[in-house]
Amino acid sequence: MYAAPAMTDFVFDPPQRILLGPGPSDVPARVLSALARPTVGYMDRSYTDLLAALQVQLRGLFRTDNTETLTITGPGTAAMEAAIYNVVEAGDRVVCCVHGYFADRMRQMAERCGGDVTVVSADWGKPVDADALKAELARRGGAKLVTVTHGETSTGVRQPVADLSAAAHAHGALMCVDTVASLGGVEFAMDDWDVDIAYTGSQKCLSVPPGISPISFSPRAMDVVRGRKTPCASWFLDLLANLTVWERPNKYHHTGAVNLSYALHEGLRIIEEEGLGERIARVQRTAEAMWAGLEAMGLPLVVDAAHRLPTLTTVRVPDGVDEARVRAELMSGYGIEIAGGLGPFAGKVWRIGLMGASCSARNVLLLLTALEGALTEQGHGVSPRAGAAAASERLNAG
Amino acid sequence: MYAAPAMTDFVFDPPQRILLGPGPSDVPARVLSALARPTVGYMDRSYTDLLAALQVQLRGLFRTDNTETLTITGPGTAAMEAAIYNVVEAGDRVVCCVHGYFADRMRQMAERCGGDVTVVSADWGKPVDADALKAELARRGGAKLVTVTHGETSTGVRQPVADLSAAAHAHGALMCVDTVASLGGVEFAMDDWDVDIAYTGSQKCLSVPPGISPISFSPRAMDVVRGRKTPCASWFLDLLANLTVWERPNKYHHTGAVNLSYALHEGLRIIEEEGLGERIARVQRTAEAMWAGLEAMGLPLVVDAAHRLPTLTTVRVPDGVDEARVRAELMSGYGIEIAGGLGPFAGKVWRIGLMGASCSARNVLLLLTALEGALTEQGHGVSPRAGAAAASERLNAG
Repeated sequence: MYAAPAMTDFVFDPPQRILLGPGPSDVPARVLSALARPTVGYMDRSYTDLLAALQVQLRGLFRTDNTETLTITGPGTAAMEAAIYNVVEAGDRVVCCVHGYFADRMRQMAERCGGDVTVVSADWGKPVDADALKAELARRGGAKLVTVTHGETSTGVRQPVADLSAAAHAHGALMCVDTVASLGGVEFAMDDWDVDIAYTGSQKCLSVPPGISPISFSPRAMDVVRGRKTPCASWFLDLLANLTVWERPNKYHHTGAVNLSYALHEGLRIIEEEGLGERIARVQRTAEAMWAGLEAMGLPLVVDAAHRLPTLTTVRVPDGVDEARVRAELMSGYGIEIAGGLGPFAGKVWRIGLMGASCSARNVLLLLTALEGALTEQGHGVSPRAGAAAASERLNAG
Repeated sequence: MYAAPAMTDFVFDPPQRILLGPGPSDVPARVLSALARPTVGYMDRSYTDLLAALQVQLRGLFRTDNTETLTITGPGTAAMEAAIYNVVEAGDRVVCCVHGYFADRMRQMAERCGGDVTVVSADWGKPVDADALKAELARRGGAKLVTVTHGETSTGVRQPVADLSAAAHAHGALMCVDTVASLGGVEFAMDDWDVDIAYTGSQKCLSVPPGISPISFSPRAMDVVRGRKTPCASWFLDLLANLTVWERPNKYHHTGAVNLSYALHEGLRIIEEEGLGERIARVQRTAEAMWAGLEAMGLPLVVDAAHRLPTLTTVRVPDGVDEARVRAELMSGYGIEIAGGLGPFAGKVWRIGLMGASCSARNVLLLLTALEGALTEQGHGVSPRAGAAAASERLNAG
């Protein structure tokens, strides 16, 4: 009989961080408790009841009446693949609005499943222009899908969506929007903005552990999905098959992430208790206080105020400052996680998230104070307490 | 500002079941506690250290030295897609051994990603014959991949694997084995049996909640993956990109299921503490006791003793018995979950799982006693206490 290898000496005891990066965000104790409830089978009445409740909650979150609102058993990247692969067949024309790393990931996926893709781009840190999209749709003709990120996590841009949707529909295309870094923290109105496909992750503005991802498809999108000539390129993420799990009585497709469903339900209850509108207003107020503090410290924000995403802020690293060392000091001194830049922003920006439970006045004050210390230590002059004072003033004014 | 819909009245409080179906199995309190530890970021040192420890644990579980041993962020179905999609390109020849629902799912996936598939089949309840595979590989020539399920959850067959591997390699094909219902409960030796790709789920013999799935690729498989002419049909499950998360220092690909990784680590520690060999022996002994009990009650087992999977037993429903009513009574009376049949076995068999923490002498005795009651209530004569007595005798003899 096989002898298992000797026990690893590794003792795992994750620290209590303050997660102010691009996600995951801090998970409330209530949600962690819900996660640890007893696992039941996927045909258990308690679980199918939970799915029915989740569906109602998710429609409220997306602000949609879409019947086809569900979760994907995987991270936001799996939801992105489900969104794109279920619509795009080999040779289909797709126009991808690309203004950052994740918008570009949508393009890569549209190409991976055989789409004939063209791009409407904007510089990192700027939104995509609706007129540029209109021109590309007119030039090309016959586009089936337009893609964009609402909250672009790599740049901190909040992309206006309604005008892009109107342009897509004027040319007969579906509009697919990534709301991974925005839904539940920034206003998003799926039906009012006429969005056909939207998805998000659990671990950002919802403050639920990663591994389960809400997604919703409009009736117009479902007509396209049902009218495909070839099956979805992914078996696992095939929407029509996934939907059978959400019907009552349900059918087996795959085993859902049962405990993560518990946590998602609890995370959405917390949002319902606060009120989605109140939460969005609180995030905006808290972000504005942080922005005031950062600017008072002489740290320039990358994105102009009109397109700044409150849930993810990009800050330009001052000349002569070692950005990685600042992050390391925030982590070692205070357990605060912020992120560096991706792609063309690598080494040039910090990315600071104010998502879900991580978004609080106390975290903003602590971060600004800790940041002041880390910058001062590198000899970068910061007027003492200027950041915290400006943020406090703004918070008290609100 | 948008007003969220009124709070749902739904109160979620999942019951404590006894999960004796095809998975999920009962999750130990230790694992649920680990699941609820604080969420950290995917670049956190504590998390990357955890991944390194997990990789060592998973090599022990698969009994392999494969460097490319990792987890997929999704259910077993996602791991199945990762296994097949990363190898198969459009037009590649694939031979699928099909002897049940999940073996057939492998065939569907191989076709979905463009494989040119032929099938070697066996009747439900029987293993696939290695000679039949040899004949098909010789007849066809040029096969790139052979697929099979080791523990076929739909039928309760334990498929001998080593002979199939030898046949595949004699014809230059890779061997891919689904161990979702077997790994950690039934002997499986990836390197000794010369298996190139194997994967499992978390929620079966490992007794960890669903949503994270171990997978391993041999050097021979990696040569094929690295030598592809076209990229993997799935962006999300692209192995070479997924592997970057497991390198140190790691790179970002997607956000892993952080808390499920905690739980998987703890579940594997429990296996290490018991000893993998001891655990496999215990499962076998417990299953044999249950089989003795079921046979003493006059309930025929579908699979012959030589190929019976201890972790999942199929029992023929006696004539005149309403199988769904029996399952409903076990659930309502005792909170015991067992399953009905799939496909050609629907309405004809029960499927009883003895996986992970669910596999215990006390659960076997309770199940047999409860089953006796449910059958008696339908007027199906069972000799009183015959099942429990036969099982007890076997357990005491062991």
